[in-house]
Amino acid sequence: MMITGELLIGNEVRRGPNGEFWGVEATTGKRLEPSFGGASLRDLDQACALADTAFDTYRATSLEDRAVFLEKTAQNILLLGDELIDRCVAETGLLRGRVEGERARTIGQLRLFASVLRDGSFLDVRINKALPDRTPLPRPDIRLSNIGIGPVGVFGASNFPLAFSVAGGDTASALAAGCPVIVKAHSAHPGTSELVGRAVQAAVRECGMPNGTFSLIFDSTRAISQALVADLRIKAIGFTGSRGAGTAFMQIAGNRPEPIPVYAEMSSVNPVILLPNALSARGAEIGKQLVSALTLGAGQFCTNPGLILVIDGDGYQDFMKAAAASLSEAAAATMLTPSIHKSYCAGVDQLAAHAAVKTIARSLSGGEHQAQAGLFETTADAFLEDKELQKEVFGASTLIVQCKDQEALRAVLQHLEGQLTISLHINGADYEFARRLIPLLERKAGRLIVNGFGTGVEVCHAMVHGGPFPATSDMRTTSVGSLAISRFLRPISYQAFPAELLSPAVSDKNDWNVPQLFDPS
Amino acid sequence: MMITGELLIGNEVRRGPNGEFWGVEATTGKRLEPSFGGASLRDLDQACALADTAFDTYRATSLEDRAVFLEKTAQNILLLGDELIDRCVAETGLLRGRVEGERARTIGQLRLFASVLRDGSFLDVRINKALPDRTPLPRPDIRLSNIGIGPVGVFGASNFPLAFSVAGGDTASALAAGCPVIVKAHSAHPGTSELVGRAVQAAVRECGMPNGTFSLIFDSTRAISQALVADLRIKAIGFTGSRGAGTAFMQIAGNRPEPIPVYAEMSSVNPVILLPNALSARGAEIGKQLVSALTLGAGQFCTNPGLILVIDGDGYQDFMKAAAASLSEAAAATMLTPSIHKSYCAGVDQLAAHAAVKTIARSLSGGEHQAQAGLFETTADAFLEDKELQKEVFGASTLIVQCKDQEALRAVLQHLEGQLTISLHINGADYEFARRLIPLLERKAGRLIVNGFGTGVEVCHAMVHGGPFPATSDMRTTSVGSLAISRFLRPISYQAFPAELLSPAVSDKNDWNVPQLFDPS
Repeated sequence: MMITGELLIGNEVRRGPNGEFWGVEATTGKRLEPSFGGASLRDLDQACALADTAFDTYRATSLEDRAVFLEKTAQNILLLGDELIDRCVAETGLLRGRVEGERARTIGQLRLFASVLRDGSFLDVRINKALPDRTPLPRPDIRLSNIGIGPVGVFGASNFPLAFSVAGGDTASALAAGCPVIVKAHSAHPGTSELVGRAVQAAVRECGMPNGTFSLIFDSTRAISQALVADLRIKAIGFTGSRGAGTAFMQIAGNRPEPIPVYAEMSSVNPVILLPNALSARGAEIGKQLVSALTLGAGQFCTNPGLILVIDGDGYQDFMKAAAASLSEAAAATMLTPSIHKSYCAGVDQLAAHAAVKTIARSLSGGEHQAQAGLFETTADAFLEDKELQKEVFGASTLIVQCKDQEALRAVLQHLEGQLTISLHINGADYEFARRLIPLLERKAGRLIVNGFGTGVEVCHAMVHGGPFPATSDMRTTSVGSLAISRFLRPISYQAFPAELLSPAVSDKNDWNVPQLFDPS
Repeated sequence: MMITGELLIGNEVRRGPNGEFWGVEATTGKRLEPSFGGASLRDLDQACALADTAFDTYRATSLEDRAVFLEKTAQNILLLGDELIDRCVAETGLLRGRVEGERARTIGQLRLFASVLRDGSFLDVRINKALPDRTPLPRPDIRLSNIGIGPVGVFGASNFPLAFSVAGGDTASALAAGCPVIVKAHSAHPGTSELVGRAVQAAVRECGMPNGTFSLIFDSTRAISQALVADLRIKAIGFTGSRGAGTAFMQIAGNRPEPIPVYAEMSSVNPVILLPNALSARGAEIGKQLVSALTLGAGQFCTNPGLILVIDGDGYQDFMKAAAASLSEAAAATMLTPSIHKSYCAGVDQLAAHAAVKTIARSLSGGEHQAQAGLFETTADAFLEDKELQKEVFGASTLIVQCKDQEALRAVLQHLEGQLTISLHINGADYEFARRLIPLLERKAGRLIVNGFGTGVEVCHAMVHGGPFPATSDMRTTSVGSLAISRFLRPISYQAFPAELLSPAVSDKNDWNVPQLFDPS
């Protein structure tokens, strides 16, 4: 398939007239052809109008038809073959194996939501049958089902060019929920975005889904992105990116005449807590494991371990020595874009220059666009004094906070902002202390992990990839796993409807064969 | 039980030092003793501190213990007997039968959430067991459960002094979710609020729930209310009231360092659509039914029918004549407070003075604090031209919009803001047109009703009392029915936890006997 640099507005393909930009080869910083044209407000307006019109038709499709559409999308992405992998590797600097794994995950997500559709329990159908003889008042027949919230704007993430981009988790869950999607491609991987976008566009056509079910736009400025969030036909936003952009979108969405939910995944340092008995028993081993988790994918995961909380004691020196040794031997790694690399260097330099922070180790140096991982150390007192030390440095940088006792550790935890994950490294003898910590950890994160790290986010029913602000803008939700579909649903009641007017999901015939909760009381 | 005018801060009782106000007898406008003291910022701070501390202990209580606590609360309210009913009737001007009915509903809600707790499915427990042999990577054990979101601030509603006030739907669902509650009593019924508050406070003590599980404050200004929404220990807000206050709270909540959800139920005119065949067959009957629904409880329901959309044709004159005749004979009714009465009169006067609005009928006139219901008529063109005509007039006022054809009706519907309910009056011959309208109605409201009115909100599993903005601030939720609990929950994942550290809900032993979804794949 040819990459043309065009917008996909519903079933149409057209050149965006609003500026021009190129994808960039991550390892060299060189332009990749062709150029991409940014969308105009007219293009956006048309995409929104199509999505708005498509909404009623699209959400009325059967669960089976929508499942087949998601599966077709998955298949079309696979059919792109090496062209997709090659372009994605070039644009992102990610290793080929990682990109292939991410493709598998993307396909898996689309198929997971196909199975969620066939299962039907996400509709949460509840039926209270009429009680005409009830006193003092009869009860009418009342039936509840979830329906799609409306057209959704999705912003592709820089760090997951496939799994959280054009046909990634946000798009898959919104489409499954019955919501048309307009994706704003991340400018870090426009070619990858177009290829995947064309795969979705083809699936829309092949499955006979309405024109406007999917659009893909490019934006060379921020104006079109902001206009997408502000457009009254858009009813929810899915976003993964910086805290600055995420909170700006929250503001725009909150100030609309009709405010809408923004699901922004923004910032997390994913604290790792090392408790005394685990540290004493296997400090060196944990040090090595930490460096593996830290440097995975150049540290460019939302769940990268950026903060280590340790109570000083037996094993602390073993842990530090092993981590430092391991990191010193690690290779430098190409980052996703030159600007992400620049931000990383600035963040690391700031840490290194901080009066209360000691540089423990750096990985090997590399080429112009490659980042040296960093291991830093500070004290609980210093950490509590300077809120800046809590900020995420996106990439393979981690700050070890040395706490003199349990009380200091607890104070640091209290002080933390919301997180996606918190990990605990413990042995049996640490359980009692861990048990007392867990209620606090539950308040601070969406996922708690024992003897592991947050990296490697399993796509399954029990996954929560979310957490208190600023980890995400809405801690009631997850962006990974089957529960992600609930972000794009709202419940609606039908009271005293004749059978002829009920949708299949809530009808007695139950042609879609969905779980229906009957309450005779 | 004696009404003292004091604040209930956790298990304590104390006089608020911040100003003084009185309950008012609705029928006479006279002060009711004693006076109530407004809370200071210090009182609020203490209530928040207690709630924050209570949270971890309270949410760790077993589902059975929490169910018993809700049932005890219900029982304590019943034990208040006639004292509660008398005071409530005096403060609100509502008829005795209505107040007794509302007490039954309040008790019923508390018991419903006790049953929701015993059922346990609200926890949405999902278990993905470890797959150690999976390739290329093993899967760790991952378990998901909902947990309480944190301490909740609840604002009592003026129009439901029991069912949406101190121990009403918001409080019951938040307490069920495991969240401590701080209620700001509505100043329209402070004595009723204190009586019920003392019943809750006693239940906390009797059931051994932690100090701070519940507090009740009075606010004679707006400062304490705003401070409650802004307090960082509060994690969600439940509110029923005006659009002005609701949107102000949304702004405060959105501008906190950590934004929180506000569940505000604000404004709805609950359109009633009369389709041609129903109108022709039973126009006069619908006219009479409309007046009954309109004047119920002096029209002071969130779901009061404030807008009637009719296609001119056979039966329209019958409908109008019957409605006018019926309303002309209706008695004037005491409104909840003098200021609500004043707002109602201003709203009705504005409608009556509008150049494009015709006054069709008014009910009988009454005493100083009594409202005359009003029936007004305008055209679709005039309605579309002036957004003011869409505004809710809280009370028994309704505007009939005459549409010349189906197209005009559809244009009016498109133009509408979000609603709690939309009702359709139809006969079999109207089904085809109704079927085409329903997708549009679904976008506009949280509950659709056939051949009835929105009044009479059934408390059951299938109820949605919610809807798009400005009906509510969050159309993904309901404030009535068992699903209301989900507003105060968030999901959390536990990865690779040893059995010793898992909470009962997600453990294999499943001591709480909750539904657990296992996924072996």
